[in-house]
Amino acid sequence: MIAKFNAIVGSENVLFGAAAKQHLTDWRGRYSGTALAVVFPADTQQVSAVVSLCASNNIAIVPQGGNTSLCGASVPLADGSQQVVINLSRMNRVRALDATNYTMTVEAGCKLAALYEAAEQADRLFPLGLTAIAPHCEIGGNLSTNAGGIGVLRYGNARDLVLGVEVVLPDGRIWNGLRSLRKDNTGYDLKHLFIGAEGTLGIITAAVLKLYPRPRAMATACVAVRDPAAAVALLAHLRASCGDKISGFEIISRSCLELVFKNIPETHEPFATKHEWIVITQLADVLQAPLDAALRYALNSFGSGINEFEITTNKDDAERWWKLRKNISDAQKIEGISIKHDVSVPISRVAEFITQASAALRHAYPGIRIVAFGHLGDGNIHYNASMPDAAQNKVLIEQHEHDVNRIVYEVVAKLDGSISAEHGLGQLKRSEIRLYKSALELELMGCIKKAIDPYGLMNPGKVL
Amino acid sequence: MIAKFNAIVGSENVLFGAAAKQHLTDWRGRYSGTALAVVFPADTQQVSAVVSLCASNNIAIVPQGGNTSLCGASVPLADGSQQVVINLSRMNRVRALDATNYTMTVEAGCKLAALYEAAEQADRLFPLGLTAIAPHCEIGGNLSTNAGGIGVLRYGNARDLVLGVEVVLPDGRIWNGLRSLRKDNTGYDLKHLFIGAEGTLGIITAAVLKLYPRPRAMATACVAVRDPAAAVALLAHLRASCGDKISGFEIISRSCLELVFKNIPETHEPFATKHEWIVITQLADVLQAPLDAALRYALNSFGSGINEFEITTNKDDAERWWKLRKNISDAQKIEGISIKHDVSVPISRVAEFITQASAALRHAYPGIRIVAFGHLGDGNIHYNASMPDAAQNKVLIEQHEHDVNRIVYEVVAKLDGSISAEHGLGQLKRSEIRLYKSALELELMGCIKKAIDPYGLMNPGKVL
Repeated sequence: MIAKFNAIVGSENVLFGAAAKQHLTDWRGRYSGTALAVVFPADTQQVSAVVSLCASNNIAIVPQGGNTSLCGASVPLADGSQQVVINLSRMNRVRALDATNYTMTVEAGCKLAALYEAAEQADRLFPLGLTAIAPHCEIGGNLSTNAGGIGVLRYGNARDLVLGVEVVLPDGRIWNGLRSLRKDNTGYDLKHLFIGAEGTLGIITAAVLKLYPRPRAMATACVAVRDPAAAVALLAHLRASCGDKISGFEIISRSCLELVFKNIPETHEPFATKHEWIVITQLADVLQAPLDAALRYALNSFGSGINEFEITTNKDDAERWWKLRKNISDAQKIEGISIKHDVSVPISRVAEFITQASAALRHAYPGIRIVAFGHLGDGNIHYNASMPDAAQNKVLIEQHEHDVNRIVYEVVAKLDGSISAEHGLGQLKRSEIRLYKSALELELMGCIKKAIDPYGLMNPGKVL
Repeated sequence: MIAKFNAIVGSENVLFGAAAKQHLTDWRGRYSGTALAVVFPADTQQVSAVVSLCASNNIAIVPQGGNTSLCGASVPLADGSQQVVINLSRMNRVRALDATNYTMTVEAGCKLAALYEAAEQADRLFPLGLTAIAPHCEIGGNLSTNAGGIGVLRYGNARDLVLGVEVVLPDGRIWNGLRSLRKDNTGYDLKHLFIGAEGTLGIITAAVLKLYPRPRAMATACVAVRDPAAAVALLAHLRASCGDKISGFEIISRSCLELVFKNIPETHEPFATKHEWIVITQLADVLQAPLDAALRYALNSFGSGINEFEITTNKDDAERWWKLRKNISDAQKIEGISIKHDVSVPISRVAEFITQASAALRHAYPGIRIVAFGHLGDGNIHYNASMPDAAQNKVLIEQHEHDVNRIVYEVVAKLDGSISAEHGLGQLKRSEIRLYKSALELELMGCIKKAIDPYGLMNPGKVL
């Protein structure tokens, strides 16, 4: 097989043995698998040839981009089965950028950060807001996992930023769905099947992405709110008064702030008083009109749910606040591992979720530390639990992870939420989702899988 | 069968014979079919029971809402096969409206106009911009055909306004996908399969729709542009300077204006000079800041592609311009029928499309009248052809429709466009699409159809 892969992509683009190792373990270091080889095709034709070869030899295929999946979606299984990793990183060309159509056609291996830059050079914005991971992750993976991030409340999830895709199907054939049309009603919308399927239906090799005008006016507020319920009400109020200018609305709990202050240098309390909950929100507009007055007016007219707030139109000042938000994950890592949840509920029920989940966890595990933060603007909360004491934390993680998940996810289910808002299922939540998705929906997913990938060769052991 | 339908929905909700007739002919009067009965269920359980009954008797099902399809998608076939129409109009409740979550959960039979009103009562906007047909069409049909309209460039197509759906599957089972989450990455996105499938995969019985804040500031411009190329460049310029405040950008040709002035009372030239092409564009904003200055600045800074323009913030003045746009179809109807096309191309290629299609048509049919207008902001042009002389027009339509379509669609295909931007395929373009969609894509659609509706009972003879 190696010789055959070599013949398609060149031997310098086929890794195996020790050289392949870094591609067989996931971003968080929790999943390691085995593969015959890691193959790096240069173009869609080569992807097609490699997939055909695998299909005719009944070898499973694991599509991989920047390998930044948080759910083990982009590495092979450890079950000893025959698998090949197809890494798309060499396919990193921007094939076309049409500034008038506000679109660019890009290959799967383009780094997200490179796409920010390509758009900027054309005086356009590509608004998929995953700035921390953007130098590492690739757009093919972003689309395959329907990535989220900070800007979703304004621009939508990754799938909302796509007009067309090119896909290599499980039998190696190439579907050219690279349309760059805003309107096209000529049958089933196949692109939405492949987006978010985590590589289980085919390999996205290229896509037509929507671009947006670049905002030129900005105002950012740091708001100390009474509680999550006040934050939820504030968001609805801000939307009604400032509309779709809101391009970020993030909530941070006291516990997050303490972790950041303790572990990240040059971070400071945003206010003289300590508050239990803060919100960072940002207005941005293409029109060069000042936004701070509107934001001030909206915040002043909100009422008693706000303890205090500050507003800036200065980018550096705003960055000092954003630093608190952006460093939460790193600050946590320094403290040791935690049990993480990436959940969503209807925005109107975020406060209920936090109250109920926290009460249930504290009841079951007195002294548990809850780190809650994230994209309130989408109802998406990153909700992590750990014990402050290292020894106790070890016990919690080794013996109680399953039960902690159950407690959190039962609250999510009761509030009609999702146990994976933006990270996907991968290997991590593949079994868990069977508890929370209806048998009928799982059956429909299975039907689709069987229709498109009848031999089950695409990224087995992920999603379903 | 009638007795069994009666038992499920009550005999007053089962029509057959002469009483059923109006439900068996389409909106434009071009397609008439036959059905055992037209059944009006009151709720999802009844839909489920009727579908189960049909499935177990191998009777085909035609889902129907307001029956306003422009492609014959919502009426039974005329081939004498056993079909039942399931009309959703009695299912017209707004089940829930969550102003904080900016969502409402509605049943398929809700009239679009009623949903505008429900949203407005909660100080929210439901932005699916089909105002002329809104009193007649129903949201189930809007979603099943992924309807478009005036606001797409700002708010997206119908599918972009949906967070979740409830579907009765071809075997009668109910899939409850009524999620109201902004983020949910837990497997294949099934809702996007049913949306736009024109009832061929199941019946959408309810949906969770996104709501938006209501704009309070508005400015409208009527712009005489040099040609479509100038209009395309103007749109890109306006987006870059005014951003997502642009909530409409419609182009109208001289021939459309002449038809309107001739046939619709109280319509007038918008300028003292006659121009070949005008654009009506509208900015709207939730912030109550005046928008006319920004619009004026943007238009003044555009350059030589604009002949002249006027701006208003007065609603009645704006309405006088919109009247020109909204009456084009009616004005055409008065003149006699024409060969209609609902096409889209990348926005940057709209001018090429108009130039090339018109040149080809005029070459083939000297004297042909071309009526081009529509949603330039989405690259979606309604492009209709007729002969000014009635006798010649009769010949054109009876003998040359196929050839006229071929000429227009070949240009569309060459420019990577779509032969059905917003109207769908239905019966009208079911054969035609086979010339312009790849065999592989048609095969994939067929696979999906077979997986979800293995006995082919859902709306046969439509789409594929």
